Amino acid sequence: MNLDMIEAAAARMAGHVRHTPLLNAPLLDRLVGRRVFVKAECLQITGSFKARGGWSAVSALSPEARKRGVIGYSSGNHAQGVAYAAAAHGAPCVILMPSDAPGVKIANTRAYGAEVVLYDRATEDRDAIGARLSADRGLTLVKPYDDPQVIAGQGTVGLELAQQAAEAGITQAPVFVCCGGGGLSSGIALALQARATGLQVRTAEPVGFDDMARSLAVGARQRNPALSGSICDAILTPSPGELTFPILGRLAGPGAVVSDAQALQAMALAFTHLRIVLEPGGAVALAAALFGEGLPDTVIAVATGGNVDPAIFATVLERSA
Amino acid sequence: MNLDMIEAAAARMAGHVRHTPLLNAPLLDRLVGRRVFVKAECLQITGSFKARGGWSAVSALSPEARKRGVIGYSSGNHAQGVAYAAAAHGAPCVILMPSDAPGVKIANTRAYGAEVVLYDRATEDRDAIGARLSADRGLTLVKPYDDPQVIAGQGTVGLELAQQAAEAGITQAPVFVCCGGGGLSSGIALALQARATGLQVRTAEPVGFDDMARSLAVGARQRNPALSGSICDAILTPSPGELTFPILGRLAGPGAVVSDAQALQAMALAFTHLRIVLEPGGAVALAAALFGEGLPDTVIAVATGGNVDPAIFATVLERSA
Repeated sequence: MNLDMIEAAAARMAGHVRHTPLLNAPLLDRLVGRRVFVKAECLQITGSFKARGGWSAVSALSPEARKRGVIGYSSGNHAQGVAYAAAAHGAPCVILMPSDAPGVKIANTRAYGAEVVLYDRATEDRDAIGARLSADRGLTLVKPYDDPQVIAGQGTVGLELAQQAAEAGITQAPVFVCCGGGGLSSGIALALQARATGLQVRTAEPVGFDDMARSLAVGARQRNPALSGSICDAILTPSPGELTFPILGRLAGPGAVVSDAQALQAMALAFTHLRIVLEPGGAVALAAALFGEGLPDTVIAVATGGNVDPAIFATVLERSA
Repeated sequence: MNLDMIEAAAARMAGHVRHTPLLNAPLLDRLVGRRVFVKAECLQITGSFKARGGWSAVSALSPEARKRGVIGYSSGNHAQGVAYAAAAHGAPCVILMPSDAPGVKIANTRAYGAEVVLYDRATEDRDAIGARLSADRGLTLVKPYDDPQVIAGQGTVGLELAQQAAEAGITQAPVFVCCGGGGLSSGIALALQARATGLQVRTAEPVGFDDMARSLAVGARQRNPALSGSICDAILTPSPGELTFPILGRLAGPGAVVSDAQALQAMALAFTHLRIVLEPGGAVALAAALFGEGLPDTVIAVATGGNVDPAIFATVLERSA
């Protein structure tokens, strides 16, 4: 993994994946007592940063592999990213999704043209199912984070962020990133190491699913005790990735952990002050940036996704009204 | 009014007012059967395009005038735009707002440091009250639309749009713009006339407040029968502006008219597919682009603002869930 791979991914996705804005709001800054900049990946095509990794991986395949097709497993955002990229490349696409994934994510993945196969998150092993389907049909497995081309694709967020931070005059800041397996966090960390040395990645996770924070603290990969039980469905992974963890162990600061209630409050503040729609798992980094203690006067958060069922968002609004 | 004034306004606001993205979504395009591009001014500082006109007008004042201060009247978006610009220029700021303006807009205007004076939209004449306050305190009145510097500021949306459309390969398209007094529509029309001749402004208004559409149809300024009664609070003006109407009469296509229900449906689709927060008056142009008949295969809508009370947005989500 190196900067060249990230730059090559950026070149392959030009015109197909969006450069997202770095937002901020004076009234939000005043409310929390620091400047909070938000990289709005919820505005990305397919509603999350996953379109980057999906495009990077599918576009790197040989013509023969594309023709056979791809398979991905995902609670919904990686699903849509891979499905979008596969459709654009004319590649057949199978997506393995947990049966408790938000309805909007399942529906959208099908709308992008993918074949969706559902599994039980608590009792079935998605890796085993994915490997079997992959072997049966000659599909190439596009893993959600432990894949060099996926990490390179997500790293393009870091290239944009380095440039946008420089334009905003930001030279020193923690960059909170919503973290599941660590694909986005590690990609951004690699890009920032090369392009903006004053910006340091800090992973953000929900309480009870803080495997990355604990792994970083002890210097070895730790597992979560449960596989479900947080509203932050997008980032509930069993443990840090094999490829991603060494990168973050070398480059990231300590991991932040926030409550589901803080994630929901961050969604409400993003609604009011930034006018963007975030899903719970996509608001965890913003929650860390807003509610963390002992932070410097300028912080950055990557708001990773906005694919949320209307009923859940309505609940957030009713609490904040 | 000419392109030079718009370009000068763009130069004065650089670094203070945001370039907003032009968004689109494959699944939304498929749903409506045409390509719909959305200029997301809800992501603008202060949550609407009004920060542009406010900044343009305040930054064009003499140092002496700035020191005495400014006054604006507005249902809330112009209020916040002028308040934001005034605070940044160290200018005292009085804002005259209708007493039925959304709570979030009144609160935010105060949070930007402005003194808010409330009036009754149905029985009081805001122009008269504004003129009196202006005379009493030596304040400069920044009108919401019938002011050359305000029109020039709003016209910067058109400069960005011309460039973004060219980058997206769009050479011919109607550009629907939410229309109150016509400041934004006329500014954009002037910019597009110079920079993107294949793009033509079409105003969009709510049913019952279609003064601009009727005025364009008959070639003379018409008034609305009522001053309140639509959920689209941001764009309920009595009649087209004196300065704005001749520009639109020369450059705009026929005006579009949408129902409140269509505006609310556009808000729900923007939530699901674009992950942006729109207020009802800010969604009228998108509604025209989504639900209009006989439109070409590519259309553009300017989504003008996203300052909406959470309770109203929750209602929109519950209907769409």
